[in-house]
Amino acid sequence: MWENEHYINHNTFLFSINMDKVKPYVIGVDLGGTNTVFGVVNARGEVVAENSIKTQQYKTAETFVEAGVACLKPLLEQIGGADQVQGMGIGAPNGNYYNGTIEFAPNLPWAHDGIIPLAQMFNEATGIPVKLTNDANAAAMGEMAYGAARGMKNFIVITLGTGVGSGIVVNGQIVYGSDGFAGELGHVIMDRTPKGRSCGCGRTGCLEAYCSATGVARTAREILATTDRPSLLREKPAEELESLDVSIAAGKGDEVANEIFQFTGKMLGEACADFAAFSSPEAFIFFGGLCKAGDLIMKPIEEAYNKSVLKIFQGKAKFLVSGLMNANAAVLGASALGWEEQ
Amino acid sequence: MWENEHYINHNTFLFSINMDKVKPYVIGVDLGGTNTVFGVVNARGEVVAENSIKTQQYKTAETFVEAGVACLKPLLEQIGGADQVQGMGIGAPNGNYYNGTIEFAPNLPWAHDGIIPLAQMFNEATGIPVKLTNDANAAAMGEMAYGAARGMKNFIVITLGTGVGSGIVVNGQIVYGSDGFAGELGHVIMDRTPKGRSCGCGRTGCLEAYCSATGVARTAREILATTDRPSLLREKPAEELESLDVSIAAGKGDEVANEIFQFTGKMLGEACADFAAFSSPEAFIFFGGLCKAGDLIMKPIEEAYNKSVLKIFQGKAKFLVSGLMNANAAVLGASALGWEEQ
Repeated sequence: MWENEHYINHNTFLFSINMDKVKPYVIGVDLGGTNTVFGVVNARGEVVAENSIKTQQYKTAETFVEAGVACLKPLLEQIGGADQVQGMGIGAPNGNYYNGTIEFAPNLPWAHDGIIPLAQMFNEATGIPVKLTNDANAAAMGEMAYGAARGMKNFIVITLGTGVGSGIVVNGQIVYGSDGFAGELGHVIMDRTPKGRSCGCGRTGCLEAYCSATGVARTAREILATTDRPSLLREKPAEELESLDVSIAAGKGDEVANEIFQFTGKMLGEACADFAAFSSPEAFIFFGGLCKAGDLIMKPIEEAYNKSVLKIFQGKAKFLVSGLMNANAAVLGASALGWEEQ
Repeated sequence: MWENEHYINHNTFLFSINMDKVKPYVIGVDLGGTNTVFGVVNARGEVVAENSIKTQQYKTAETFVEAGVACLKPLLEQIGGADQVQGMGIGAPNGNYYNGTIEFAPNLPWAHDGIIPLAQMFNEATGIPVKLTNDANAAAMGEMAYGAARGMKNFIVITLGTGVGSGIVVNGQIVYGSDGFAGELGHVIMDRTPKGRSCGCGRTGCLEAYCSATGVARTAREILATTDRPSLLREKPAEELESLDVSIAAGKGDEVANEIFQFTGKMLGEACADFAAFSSPEAFIFFGGLCKAGDLIMKPIEEAYNKSVLKIFQGKAKFLVSGLMNANAAVLGASALGWEEQ
């Protein structure tokens, strides 16, 4: 269906895979707060079969894995068994690539207060080699393998969702850092003054506090509460405002909504200017609901970046929207990890 | 002499060099604003011969290279000729690793207004393969090969000199970025308010404006001018104050001087907290005159870091002073590039 059409056009053959040596499929697992989706993916980046379970329904990691394996079974049968699978990649909140664990993930009832060796558990239950990483790193893997970053060696994916996440690629490799937790760019400090907004991480002034979906909604509420300016955003009770409302209003030319995007874009562009000083990426790739506003958000980001970045970097970096926005990006991204098992 | 004793103790055999395949020496070149030092280095990180020329004495890149080659000649004869040399590494201001050029280096009379293909010029004149990088990256290479970062795959070297520079290592590789100019951590913005200090780069609020030697002296002048507090620093005309004066006064227990180090350390520690969100390094390694103050500066850095960094990183990173402070670090660092020629 969509996946096939979209990706066959790209004629994607992945990075440096020697197809003589590898098996024809990988499994990508998008472990989200609500659903856990298992997808079988071929080397062209087509999801050929998919199935899911409810993440929250299980009290222990053991019962979750048991259900996951049961969910996988018909998919594996469809492709001729686990022998046809090169590897499995899992993208999960608080996932640690080095040891294959999920660590203290607040939104997972079976992993919120401990360290779960999820990769090992799935490996033991299926015999398939398993790698695990956090969701933003999986998104970066996906962009590199099938999306907007194909052919790039240095880029940064910034995910704008409930939080702000990031997957950083340097020299063609995901940056995991010394402990597997690198790439938390939602938590660089943008406002060190006492006015810095409180962030879910317990600190103040983080990028995430301004540029996540909740941050954008908060900006909207602040502007509406402190001014009398007319706005379409006043049609809804302030406490119910979401970033999507801002996108819709901005699309209709609402001045206040556009100002919110200017503010958000400036914050993101200035943050990217600092990131350039770190790894000078070829591109910044944005992923998530907010990007659906297109130029309304992307233009302010790029303008603020080029205005504030160090002179040697001006005009060099591309600002792109994810190449996987309409695909099952999380499954594809996680599946890309499966090809590492060679 | 010092080099031998210091490094033989470490019994350093370098990264993954297969000594059967490589030649016994490399050449390291420290191209500084005043002197250009050529050193012959063996695989144990010992500078076995050294010679230098005055950088400023030459009007064109051609005459500079000619003098450099003449300076190298007796060194090469001493080791049995250029055939004994695996490669040459040059550390230079505004050096670009990818194309071996020096680009618009304001302090070099023969390179301030153009792009000089210096690596190629030395290669053509000597027949030796040449790589070039900027000075802070060379320092990071040196730490990895011979210094405090031996065995580390993820670390950041921060050089505190006239400016603030950085060399970043991720997955055991220097981060050059898409254009060769990555690692400009002196130019992340620490103060986005209108009060942000002006920086030599033309922007305001950069880390370098506070934590370079000139930044520290400026902090001193600001505190002395805006308070009546007694301080040893008042013994010198304010305009002549240097960061070394602050170190000396702090060492004598001067309260104002210690407050300056607290302020500087807090700024560096908070910046490192942002860098951790990027690459979660195993260690931050500080290099340059300011580090000679030891704990007086290092403790405030580490304290501010652990106070401000994201919880998952707290207490993990090491804060180290360069392992090459008393050695010819720049020559050693640049020479490490020479081993890349395999």
